Amino acid sequence: MKSIELAERIGALCEGGNVELSQVASFAAATPHSLVFVEHPRFLEAALASAAGAVIVPHDVPNDAPAPGAQPRVPANAPAAAAQPRVPDGTPSSDAPPAHNKVLLRSSNPRLAFALAAAELRRAAPAYGSIDPSAVIDSTASVDLTASVDALCVIGAGARIGARSHLGPGCIVGPGVSIGADCDLVARVVVHSGTTLGDRVTVKPGAVLGGDGFGFVPDPATGRYHKFPQIGRLEIGNDVEIGANTCIDRGALDATVIADGVKLDNLVQIGHNVHIGRNVVVASQTGISGSSVLEDGVIVGGQVGIADHVRIEQGAILGAQCGIPSKKVLRGPGVVFWGTPARPITEYLRELATLARLTKKKK
Amino acid sequence: MKSIELAERIGALCEGGNVELSQVASFAAATPHSLVFVEHPRFLEAALASAAGAVIVPHDVPNDAPAPGAQPRVPANAPAAAAQPRVPDGTPSSDAPPAHNKVLLRSSNPRLAFALAAAELRRAAPAYGSIDPSAVIDSTASVDLTASVDALCVIGAGARIGARSHLGPGCIVGPGVSIGADCDLVARVVVHSGTTLGDRVTVKPGAVLGGDGFGFVPDPATGRYHKFPQIGRLEIGNDVEIGANTCIDRGALDATVIADGVKLDNLVQIGHNVHIGRNVVVASQTGISGSSVLEDGVIVGGQVGIADHVRIEQGAILGAQCGIPSKKVLRGPGVVFWGTPARPITEYLRELATLARLTKKKK
Amino acid sequence: MKSIELAERIGALCEGGNVELSQVASFAAATPHSLVFVEHPRFLEAALASAAGAVIVPHDVPNDAPAPGAQPRVPANAPAAAAQPRVPDGTPSSDAPPAHNKVLLRSSNPRLAFALAAAELRRAAPAYGSIDPSAVIDSTASVDLTASVDALCVIGAGARIGARSHLGPGCIVGPGVSIGADCDLVARVVVHSGTTLGDRVTVKPGAVLGGDGFGFVPDPATGRYHKFPQIGRLEIGNDVEIGANTCIDRGALDATVIADGVKLDNLVQIGHNVHIGRNVVVASQTGISGSSVLEDGVIVGGQVGIADHVRIEQGAILGAQCGIPSKKVLRGPGVVFWGTPARPITEYLRELATLARLTKKKK
Repeated sequence: MKSIELAERIGALCEGGNVELSQVASFAAATPHSLVFVEHPRFLEAALASAAGAVIVPHDVPNDAPAPGAQPRVPANAPAAAAQPRVPDGTPSSDAPPAHNKVLLRSSNPRLAFALAAAELRRAAPAYGSIDPSAVIDSTASVDLTASVDALCVIGAGARIGARSHLGPGCIVGPGVSIGADCDLVARVVVHSGTTLGDRVTVKPGAVLGGDGFGFVPDPATGRYHKFPQIGRLEIGNDVEIGANTCIDRGALDATVIADGVKLDNLVQIGHNVHIGRNVVVASQTGISGSSVLEDGVIVGGQVGIADHVRIEQGAILGAQCGIPSKKVLRGPGVVFWGTPARPITEYLRELATLARLTKKKK
Repeated sequence: MKSIELAERIGALCEGGNVELSQVASFAAATPHSLVFVEHPRFLEAALASAAGAVIVPHDVPNDAPAPGAQPRVPANAPAAAAQPRVPDGTPSSDAPPAHNKVLLRSSNPRLAFALAAAELRRAAPAYGSIDPSAVIDSTASVDLTASVDALCVIGAGARIGARSHLGPGCIVGPGVSIGADCDLVARVVVHSGTTLGDRVTVKPGAVLGGDGFGFVPDPATGRYHKFPQIGRLEIGNDVEIGANTCIDRGALDATVIADGVKLDNLVQIGHNVHIGRNVVVASQTGISGSSVLEDGVIVGGQVGIADHVRIEQGAILGAQCGIPSKKVLRGPGVVFWGTPARPITEYLRELATLARLTKKKK
Repeated sequence: MKSIELAERIGALCEGGNVELSQVASFAAATPHSLVFVEHPRFLEAALASAAGAVIVPHDVPNDAPAPGAQPRVPANAPAAAAQPRVPDGTPSSDAPPAHNKVLLRSSNPRLAFALAAAELRRAAPAYGSIDPSAVIDSTASVDLTASVDALCVIGAGARIGARSHLGPGCIVGPGVSIGADCDLVARVVVHSGTTLGDRVTVKPGAVLGGDGFGFVPDPATGRYHKFPQIGRLEIGNDVEIGANTCIDRGALDATVIADGVKLDNLVQIGHNVHIGRNVVVASQTGISGSSVLEDGVIVGGQVGIADHVRIEQGAILGAQCGIPSKKVLRGPGVVFWGTPARPITEYLRELATLARLTKKKK
């Protein structure tokens, strides 16, 4: 894709030419067809010294290299390329034409622009469609001609794989599953019968979608537990990302629902009948028990535990490791919760301070 | 299976006919060969309006449809079918014959009866036995004629698969493993050598059974850790359910033991030499360290951490996220523990109240 | 391997003969080619009664069997063999030649010697090299002649598998991945492009190495999250062990680094750009967020949560379930931390005592 077209798509201004771009990259790995980005002027010099064909920059950087002799302050965690040789001395002053040959894409939010550009370039790549001969595909499954199915996948009867979707090696798609367009099941994903995925859904290796929930009926006479039938569905919307080894159970009788734009990290557990609202973000190793509801825009830290039948209201923020007891309702938006049972962080921190003070006094 | 025979097997009373039933279902998905259930009379109308052939009901509901014009109170989380058209008006009064054509199975515990019925119907389904040609099975392995092995399974030398057991796609069964009758390895399960499974064991995708435990010997001279040989076994009893991506390590020198009736949720970790007693239930993301013992009937919430050499006595209940330090003994039965280190919940809540009170006073 | 050579390699003294040994074992499973060990003289009798060909013992045990009639105190958790018949009565006194036919390997640290012996015997086993015909291997991949690739593995273009390394069934190795010598990918491991493994790395089933990190850029205008490109690398050193279903994400732009000698348990999550120092040990279900640094020799308990940009200094010890907030620095060495936010354990326990005291007073 040409840099002027790409700039238009991501809401940036293109200056200094119109180069062909095929990928985003770090400074170190860039090629002339790569796009890199800088958020701070202090990284500009390193970007210009890279092999990249184009650089996304904030609006306020000059369109030439930094003044000769300027010593950019490079923090310890700067990209490796920052340590590479800088552009030669003798760089002209800022009203001369730029000393570098980079195309600049100016944006008020370079990090967002870089993310959007990556998505545009990924989508612009042609999808040829291919099926590895080692895949085991039921004759009644429907795989779009532009979809690709890698080695050792298994696709069950009546399953449907949409346009340009990709099943990496070892994926298992159950009978009747429906997968939309532009999805990426990276590798070794299991999708059970009764599950539907929207468009542009990414699922990472080891994830298990739509399995039986954890529901049992105790027999008081014997102390034994009998499995309660798990015969519901799992509905996943568009633009969802699901992490590696994450498990999402199907509903017991009805549906578990993951709405558009939800992002789940690795090793997350979602129980049966849970509803996750739009653009909810859940960090790693969090668990959400049966029938709980997370409204739109909720942010959940890592290792959070949400019991059953909880409601987290729109825009609430759950700090890492906090715990929400059964049937609780937490009010959003913008309130940050900590601790078990979870309470507003200011309260939690005041309590910690009280305890520390009383402990010292005693000593 | 005929409804009268099924009723007998689950301890229910069958009235209104003898229909052929093949599966349990939700109201929405029911067919004339489906069995549904209601726990509350208020759902009866919706059940009768479904396509199901039979309904499990409590003893105290009338054997006809609700009086015409009665407005059943349907809570927000009622099954979808509850919103469907109700039986037509003009339903006769309760001493007339019923207006519906449903068989009723009366039970004092409809939820338990439904669970038992599901198991009976599942077991009644004929097991034909089949081996997918893409499976890689060692010639010395023994697969029962009624067992089925799906695509891309790998079965090692000398392994044994019992009657009517099912290995879903991508399962890996190590040399010498023994799997009993009526087991279901749903998909992509790994069972290491040295593991035995009893009968009626369900293992969900991604579970890893009998892998090496996490045991190392530090070399004080170098600071390096050397793997301590993990050459023990894993013994799993009957009627056990093991969740997706759950890991159970084999013993270091002896055995890790999972007794009959244990139910483990997804993403659980069980260390080497752990003993889990009968009918123990463990919720998602809990971890149990090496050599700990959970006695019969213990209930463990989600994200609980149990250190090594702990003993949880019969019938104790560990609340979600609590932590039990090394070598501790917790007394059951019926005591609920919370917090880290875990203490009886009443104590924990009193402490929280004290802290909140002192913090407010200070303010 | 002969016992004298083995003793030399592990720094032990061999007495009583030179037997051929092929494996380490428990007392119960031992054969004449097995090596067992005892740490306490009270287990010696059981070891001598086993079928093992050789026994690692401390320096201070006599080289004959215990005096006849001595009743060794066997604790409840002693290996099963301890209950087996003891050597017959009439054992000669200690200045007579030994009554048993065992070779003894004396060591000041029998447990460490046993671990080292297991590694030596494993490495001494011949590596023939084999490729299962069901594996799908790209023609440009390079698999050492002494490496073995089991059933249904997938190896991508340009990947390299080193000498004597083993890929168990169902492993997926992405294009360009480099795996060193003597590695063991036990089964069903996924290694993404951009990952390198050193020598003697063990990876257990279900682990996902080098996947995309969890990085998104919010669009304030829409509330939607856009994936930030995850185009960095994952570098794993020598002698690393990675647990089942553990996930290690690649760097976003640079590298995630796992140094030599690191041991990670099952179900651990390591975020993008994390650096884990040499000989760090991390127990099960711990999560480490993006860009955090664990210096050499850190010990991390189970279910610990480490937020982003944290630094844990050399030799610090994080107790199970503790939580370290974003950007925090924890000082080692030898300090044990507990609680959320993590504080030195003495402080944490004093606070708990204060709270308990105040709660009782109130009552």
